[in-house]
Amino acid sequence: MATDHSRVINFGAGPSALPVSVLEEAAKGLLNFQGTGIGIAEISHRSKEFQAFLTNLESLIRTQLNVPSTHRILFTQGGGTGQFSAVVLNLLARYRLLHPERTVEDTVMDYVVTGSWSRRAAEEARRLGGGRVNVVVDARTHSDDGKSFDRIPPHEAFHFSPDPALVYYCENETVDGTEFSHDLASPSAFPYHLLHQDTLVPLVADYSSSFMCRPIPRLADHAVIYAGAQKNIGPAGLTILIVRQDCIVDVDAAALLGASPVPLTMAYKTLADSGSLYNTPSVLPIYIAGLVLQAMQKNGGLRHYEDMNRRKMQKVYAALEEGEKAGVLRRKVKEGSGSWMNVVFEVVGADAEKKFLEGAEQRGMKGLKGHRSVGGIRVSLYNAITEEEVDQVVDHMKQFVSQQTESL
Amino acid sequence: MATDHSRVINFGAGPSALPVSVLEEAAKGLLNFQGTGIGIAEISHRSKEFQAFLTNLESLIRTQLNVPSTHRILFTQGGGTGQFSAVVLNLLARYRLLHPERTVEDTVMDYVVTGSWSRRAAEEARRLGGGRVNVVVDARTHSDDGKSFDRIPPHEAFHFSPDPALVYYCENETVDGTEFSHDLASPSAFPYHLLHQDTLVPLVADYSSSFMCRPIPRLADHAVIYAGAQKNIGPAGLTILIVRQDCIVDVDAAALLGASPVPLTMAYKTLADSGSLYNTPSVLPIYIAGLVLQAMQKNGGLRHYEDMNRRKMQKVYAALEEGEKAGVLRRKVKEGSGSWMNVVFEVVGADAEKKFLEGAEQRGMKGLKGHRSVGGIRVSLYNAITEEEVDQVVDHMKQFVSQQTESL
Repeated sequence: MATDHSRVINFGAGPSALPVSVLEEAAKGLLNFQGTGIGIAEISHRSKEFQAFLTNLESLIRTQLNVPSTHRILFTQGGGTGQFSAVVLNLLARYRLLHPERTVEDTVMDYVVTGSWSRRAAEEARRLGGGRVNVVVDARTHSDDGKSFDRIPPHEAFHFSPDPALVYYCENETVDGTEFSHDLASPSAFPYHLLHQDTLVPLVADYSSSFMCRPIPRLADHAVIYAGAQKNIGPAGLTILIVRQDCIVDVDAAALLGASPVPLTMAYKTLADSGSLYNTPSVLPIYIAGLVLQAMQKNGGLRHYEDMNRRKMQKVYAALEEGEKAGVLRRKVKEGSGSWMNVVFEVVGADAEKKFLEGAEQRGMKGLKGHRSVGGIRVSLYNAITEEEVDQVVDHMKQFVSQQTESL
Repeated sequence: MATDHSRVINFGAGPSALPVSVLEEAAKGLLNFQGTGIGIAEISHRSKEFQAFLTNLESLIRTQLNVPSTHRILFTQGGGTGQFSAVVLNLLARYRLLHPERTVEDTVMDYVVTGSWSRRAAEEARRLGGGRVNVVVDARTHSDDGKSFDRIPPHEAFHFSPDPALVYYCENETVDGTEFSHDLASPSAFPYHLLHQDTLVPLVADYSSSFMCRPIPRLADHAVIYAGAQKNIGPAGLTILIVRQDCIVDVDAAALLGASPVPLTMAYKTLADSGSLYNTPSVLPIYIAGLVLQAMQKNGGLRHYEDMNRRKMQKVYAALEEGEKAGVLRRKVKEGSGSWMNVVFEVVGADAEKKFLEGAEQRGMKGLKGHRSVGGIRVSLYNAITEEEVDQVVDHMKQFVSQQTESL
């Protein structure tokens, strides 16, 4: 298939750009998967060909992220929002089994709130009941205006509870553009041993928008890491879970002790016992994610992507800094707290944002509008965005800044 | 793109065959969706192009199935198994709001069990608690051997409860090959008004494997109809719901009255309030389902498919009857209870089944092995299977019967 030259550069925040070579391969697979004579959307999920593909997908993730044998890799549907509920239900079940004597009032879930997604995850924990939500920190209370998620607060501001059923954070906040971008800022770097006797902290991380863009620090110290596929690695409809074995519990036994019943498809045990094939998985998104991960490994694995993504992000932040000095652009996130994947900023002046976006569209760049809840500009730099494409948006930023400066 | 002549005929039970013309169109859409310059797996679910596509998909379903305005059409993920839980949680919440004074012991859910899928749905209702499961009928107790799902019992054998929170049935049992194939055999044809004062029966139907293969009788009398897409209309990863407005309830208000909390993504209200876009839907499966439904409408809509599917099914059952008379094949489901979509039978004699399957494979036919739990042969005749393809499997059946008869 000839490359389609009518494609634009897609800086959207998700669903987002995928490598053209993968899409071309997937287009062939739609008609005929691995010479079976059956397209990938039509083949049985219990066929040996698909099962081998799924096993290989697991191994591509395990190898590249260096996932230890203490952790299972599971595949499901429902996205990050589905996991807002699933982590709570599974880890409350685990807690109930560990502490059958404790009441709902004695059960606390710790949430590190650094943006819209972790805030919504905490809301879902409150909705589901089964325990009290302790906000470890709300980054807004540390912001300049008291209401924006504009930075990652320091560990000194974190207030954990003594023995939580889970400790939750969102590694990269896609809407607000904040990230635990410095290795030691992450909740995974917190010295929990100073707080707890039990060092097996039930640490949960939403990695939806930074999964597979660079290595996960202290991966082995996490209880659950999850990610929707639709940022760096595939189409929407696939959710990837990395779950420590002690968090795969008998939810029915926990229900007998008073935990909330867990829908079958949300129980990690259902997924683990069936090799993620209890019911029909989203075969087509799995296929495309597999092709992306194969291509990633061929290209040099996560270290390659980390280096490339660092360069990409640094270029955009550098252009942003210039624009800020010129009074044309304004960053929305403090230095040191900015996301690698989603760089957010404002364009100063009436109608200037519109002009910036129109100019970008004329140059074949789309998806640069910020999330509807916060406005402004958002440049998403997922793995499939090439350095050449980043150069184009950076060039547009620079040209825009110089035009605006001249017209001032 | 040239047609791929290496494709086999896929009689698999799901994921299953899709029309080649749709797959070719989808392959193009993967690279560039409707001239946006962005592939369908990469485009924002909040883009105007995708939202228009989704609205059109809804309208294609509404028109072809004649869905009245009393019912919403919703899209979600998680398949039929996800809905085993969701219907219970949502309808128990509705019941709790209608009858706040009743206890869990006073709450009954009625299940019509005619095969493996309705049996598993009833098990999930038991797991989740919140009410007692009443088995309206278990078709196995009416079978020849007392343990097979080999027929649809008559209405006289149904024992409903006086005021159930839900009445559940599975229209077509993919594994066992039984279906409410005669219009008046369906639980939707039961004269509930003889039992209840309230005629608004909370009737739930799993239509996963017969959705869009023919019109749904008495659709408007259902509370919830749901279907995984991966049989007649698209890839796995999309679940379609048709929900009567009174079943879209405030699950949080119900939880205050003692109902189980409902995960956000499983609450019908979340889906309805957001136009099925609360979180990122499975964009790519939705796209392919949309293409299939467009093609269906162009081909003459449901009446065309009903006529074609009736002819297809009659041809296979006729060949089966001949094979049975010759003592070579044996039908597993009583006449009048056989599925339109999944015709199941046995091949008589040692190694005969293997020979039947090998012969089929040599002629380019795959997916004919019965479900691993019941064995035998299963011929799935979903919409994408053409009459010419049915002629080929029928021809194989006839040749096989005559060969076996000669060798006897």
